[in-house]
Amino acid sequence: MKPAVRIAITGAAGNIGYAAAFRISAGDMLGADQPVILQLIEIEPALQALRGVEMELLDCAFPLLEEVIVTTDLSVGFKDADYVLLIGSKPRTKGMERSDLLSDNGKIFKPQGRAINEHSSRDVKVLVIGNPANTNGLIAVNNAPDLSPTQFTSMMRLDHNRALNQLSLKTETPVTGISRLTVWGNHSLTQYPDISHCSIGGESATSLIDMTWYKETFLSSVQKRGAEIIVARGASSAASAASAAIDHMRDWVFGTSGEDWTSMSIVSNGDYGITEGLMFSFPVRCKDGEYEVVRDLEIDDFSREMIQATEKELLEERDAVKDLL
Amino acid sequence: MKPAVRIAITGAAGNIGYAAAFRISAGDMLGADQPVILQLIEIEPALQALRGVEMELLDCAFPLLEEVIVTTDLSVGFKDADYVLLIGSKPRTKGMERSDLLSDNGKIFKPQGRAINEHSSRDVKVLVIGNPANTNGLIAVNNAPDLSPTQFTSMMRLDHNRALNQLSLKTETPVTGISRLTVWGNHSLTQYPDISHCSIGGESATSLIDMTWYKETFLSSVQKRGAEIIVARGASSAASAASAAIDHMRDWVFGTSGEDWTSMSIVSNGDYGITEGLMFSFPVRCKDGEYEVVRDLEIDDFSREMIQATEKELLEERDAVKDLL
Repeated sequence: MKPAVRIAITGAAGNIGYAAAFRISAGDMLGADQPVILQLIEIEPALQALRGVEMELLDCAFPLLEEVIVTTDLSVGFKDADYVLLIGSKPRTKGMERSDLLSDNGKIFKPQGRAINEHSSRDVKVLVIGNPANTNGLIAVNNAPDLSPTQFTSMMRLDHNRALNQLSLKTETPVTGISRLTVWGNHSLTQYPDISHCSIGGESATSLIDMTWYKETFLSSVQKRGAEIIVARGASSAASAASAAIDHMRDWVFGTSGEDWTSMSIVSNGDYGITEGLMFSFPVRCKDGEYEVVRDLEIDDFSREMIQATEKELLEERDAVKDLL
Repeated sequence: MKPAVRIAITGAAGNIGYAAAFRISAGDMLGADQPVILQLIEIEPALQALRGVEMELLDCAFPLLEEVIVTTDLSVGFKDADYVLLIGSKPRTKGMERSDLLSDNGKIFKPQGRAINEHSSRDVKVLVIGNPANTNGLIAVNNAPDLSPTQFTSMMRLDHNRALNQLSLKTETPVTGISRLTVWGNHSLTQYPDISHCSIGGESATSLIDMTWYKETFLSSVQKRGAEIIVARGASSAASAASAAIDHMRDWVFGTSGEDWTSMSIVSNGDYGITEGLMFSFPVRCKDGEYEVVRDLEIDDFSREMIQATEKELLEERDAVKDLL
């Protein structure tokens, strides 16, 4: 058996953390031969509930779950972590001022970035899930100067998977038959699900998909899917967000499949003209634990406009948190 | 790729169903090469929430999830089902009369047994999870005369896994080093977690474990674990119950490991003197999709007394629902 790896999860008593912890312990993220130690982190008011989660995790008698650590202390929670899922955040609530949203999240992600920088494995892979995920990720990475910016990512995979599902339903093609989809930019309403290079059942998506449906229905159905789920369930997406986090990490570790790619928010190197240092979602291929932007895709005028709009939003978000970077 | 199998789940919008559906779709129950069709069943008031669960399942873009069917109609939900998880039930609430508990559940499990009898695959495997699970299972199996009683089981695996965890914590041995544990009888406070034949790290459990701790602490800690979780989480066990259901089904389909066994509530054949026809938890080994009671274990006086006490409770439960059988 391999030695265990350490996986730190913040907001671990919340609904996404709860859904993720059991699937990770079952081997869904890192495989059936990889023992894990879960380092579950919560804020003080959620600590008792987190102890309940710990009890349930132990009650599963998972063969791969070597240990569960429960803490409110970042220096304990992030210690030697090989993988970090930053789930806990303060998402924007109705009537909340933007400045409050950003300062509340600054209070969370700045110390977390520092603690990861100080305590985690030098090879740690970090995924930010808590919203606003891109800018929270930007704050975290900018507070971890001793690590490489490539070790910090934010989650775009839920949007990517949602777009796959919409295309699958529309074309009656299994999701496994759809490839080369990209969701660009910010995990927000300005995200751009791009089918320009997408293949569906071996054919070009743009030849199969009616562009009026694409522009008028598809884009907003993906962008607003989160709100639709809340209306139906009376609760926000939890298990699907956890599943996307698992997919993101699994692909990062084990690689994307063949010529396909996925969507990950990463620190921009200037590819596709996106401002360097911005946490932005690109098409990426993963191999041997590294990711690389898929370069030289042709970008038409519509795509260029959509990509610039989501970049503009992220630049504004960055400016609003510049004191935290 | 194998042809898809159909898995029917009742109470699928509840917390256990929610936790189970995603793990099953990820391949945790039937393996990474087995496509599945989920047939999710709810009562009318939960149908909208169930549609939200369906949306989230589709949003995961699970390669193995071929289709999701959402219904309140048992003849649709159980149609051609290869596996059935009966999760939805009316558990006993504070101050509830026993007669009400039993008649409420009779209203659920009698028509479900009939619908499975009429509509499901002739090889269907049924697991009852909703409490009182043994007697609910007894009602279901007695209303499915065209199927073999061996196709109906009730869940004891959560108790089994909880007992493994308590032994693991006490002896500082990984759960994988503990075998031949049995939890006998009813999934209730009279259950009997038996370590008489149990091996821990290659040694006999009875030689490692202090019998005062065993009788005064261990037994009640396993029996009352559900209540302990509720106090900590403010919610009853969900993901751990779903995980136990997955373990139960996986072992039933793929077999238990080597000389080890597990605990399953099955229709008694009279083994160990237990009244024939009672839904009672025994030590069982599984192989090639069948299970067999582990026979000829030596039962000492203490065990005999505990087993008879849990049998007595199940006989009383059976008498109280005799009109439904």
